[in-house]
Amino acid sequence: MNRSLDIQQYLQEKLKWIESALPSFITRDNVPDRLLQSMEYSLYAGGKRIRPILILTTMEAFGKDPETGLAAACAVEMIHTYSLIHDDLPAMDDDDFRRGKPTNHKVFDEGTAILAGDGLLTDAFRTLCTLSDKGVAPKTIVQLVSELSYYAGPRGMVGGQMADLQGEGKHLGLPELQYIHQHKTADLLIFCLRAGGLLSGATPEQLEHLTTFGRNVGLAFQIQDDILDIYGDEAKLGKPVGSDEANEKSTYPSLIGLEKSKELLESLVAEAKESLVKADIACDTLNQIADFIIKRES
Amino acid sequence: MNRSLDIQQYLQEKLKWIESALPSFITRDNVPDRLLQSMEYSLYAGGKRIRPILILTTMEAFGKDPETGLAAACAVEMIHTYSLIHDDLPAMDDDDFRRGKPTNHKVFDEGTAILAGDGLLTDAFRTLCTLSDKGVAPKTIVQLVSELSYYAGPRGMVGGQMADLQGEGKHLGLPELQYIHQHKTADLLIFCLRAGGLLSGATPEQLEHLTTFGRNVGLAFQIQDDILDIYGDEAKLGKPVGSDEANEKSTYPSLIGLEKSKELLESLVAEAKESLVKADIACDTLNQIADFIIKRES
Repeated sequence: MNRSLDIQQYLQEKLKWIESALPSFITRDNVPDRLLQSMEYSLYAGGKRIRPILILTTMEAFGKDPETGLAAACAVEMIHTYSLIHDDLPAMDDDDFRRGKPTNHKVFDEGTAILAGDGLLTDAFRTLCTLSDKGVAPKTIVQLVSELSYYAGPRGMVGGQMADLQGEGKHLGLPELQYIHQHKTADLLIFCLRAGGLLSGATPEQLEHLTTFGRNVGLAFQIQDDILDIYGDEAKLGKPVGSDEANEKSTYPSLIGLEKSKELLESLVAEAKESLVKADIACDTLNQIADFIIKRES
Repeated sequence: MNRSLDIQQYLQEKLKWIESALPSFITRDNVPDRLLQSMEYSLYAGGKRIRPILILTTMEAFGKDPETGLAAACAVEMIHTYSLIHDDLPAMDDDDFRRGKPTNHKVFDEGTAILAGDGLLTDAFRTLCTLSDKGVAPKTIVQLVSELSYYAGPRGMVGGQMADLQGEGKHLGLPELQYIHQHKTADLLIFCLRAGGLLSGATPEQLEHLTTFGRNVGLAFQIQDDILDIYGDEAKLGKPVGSDEANEKSTYPSLIGLEKSKELLESLVAEAKESLVKADIACDTLNQIADFIIKRES
């Protein structure tokens, strides 16, 4: 059987499940129409839903029924969506399009887009609390709330976005580039892996291995993104090849060279996969998702 | 003894306590300098700290040591501060000054101000989780997280701000004006009262009475604000008297007349005070704070 087809099908099924569940978690009663429309516009705008899937797949790797963790999956997608809405704002990356559609502030307006982001960010934490309806222990929910805040907050995703904003148009060194990738991208992936672990009763050691997996996959993804910008296929990538170089953007290849970048990528992936073996959980699907994330051509 | 001096002194002591505690709750390790500076600029910019004080005073009204609830008090101040930063943005109220100081985006920039707000909002939920260090039960913390998200989120404070934004420059009816006041102002006060109750083991009936108190005080404050705009003292108020009328802004006096507005104000306050009697808790300080909030001349 075609293994790559399998994982595509697996991801598609999980994506549909998450998309069918999202509307049941978002707050709608007594919410101003325009605010709800703006929140839903971005929340239902597609995307691969990789973050929520990682929570569910991690639970499966522990032999748990992922249905219990569906609220956590939807919460993390709300956080990811809010971050995209705010990142696209004129004061940030100033993007007019995302996934081929006009960005939130283009369809609505900047004020509404800011509030839609604030609404999704706030609603994500209430969504986590609904895990108690599935019998998740309050202590575990508190841990999830604390970790989501930690990995998405000022020293996590928000910090990464700040560093990215400050680095714009500047030649960054490797530590700065690493800070951005670690926090802007990897931290939320780490949360997903740990959330899946926490919902499955993982030991502290297992959580450490899951953290390594999430971080390495996140960093490897960014390095691959840099490499693809030089050697990728423009049509598949959806952005002009060589745009980073044209923008004089610091990248792994520009800082350590293409060969070393490829070596680093490979070693990160190898360490990620090793960490799952150390965690002593079912590795196969998580490894395939890692390959899917990193080896993507676009 | 001068009762009004007493409450001023009480509020001042609590304010100092909260301000001395805030730095220990905000995340600083590994946070980009500029982001931390921007968050702290607004968090330490003064203000009466009425919301966090209400949590602590409610606990005292139940005979509880408020020290246990200090993290919840600081969390709600982070939420309040984030909402001010985002409300002041050019895409929202476009204010250059707050409490006599340049607004966050004027000192930093819009992108940083958006991220500082996001950071404080996210960090508030982690701060709530630290209540477990004081022996607060995980179940209570989950309830607090859920309620903070509910009252600050899309059908709470964020919803109120959206309705306010949509209502700008329009003649609003009473239901729209009530929605804005209820959600933009009263909801976070309701959370404070309920949080104090939840941290004190309040019964569902007591929580209902605390909800009434918080809502009524919030609405009464807004009506008084409208009345003061017509009859207040410009120097004490810090904004030109009659500015609402000049801006053709819908207010309680413009919609139901001055006399009816005053009657409504009085009946809201009376019901608020009655609700504390029904809750069977020590009313005195909460009532004085209610008077302080509502009867203020500026």
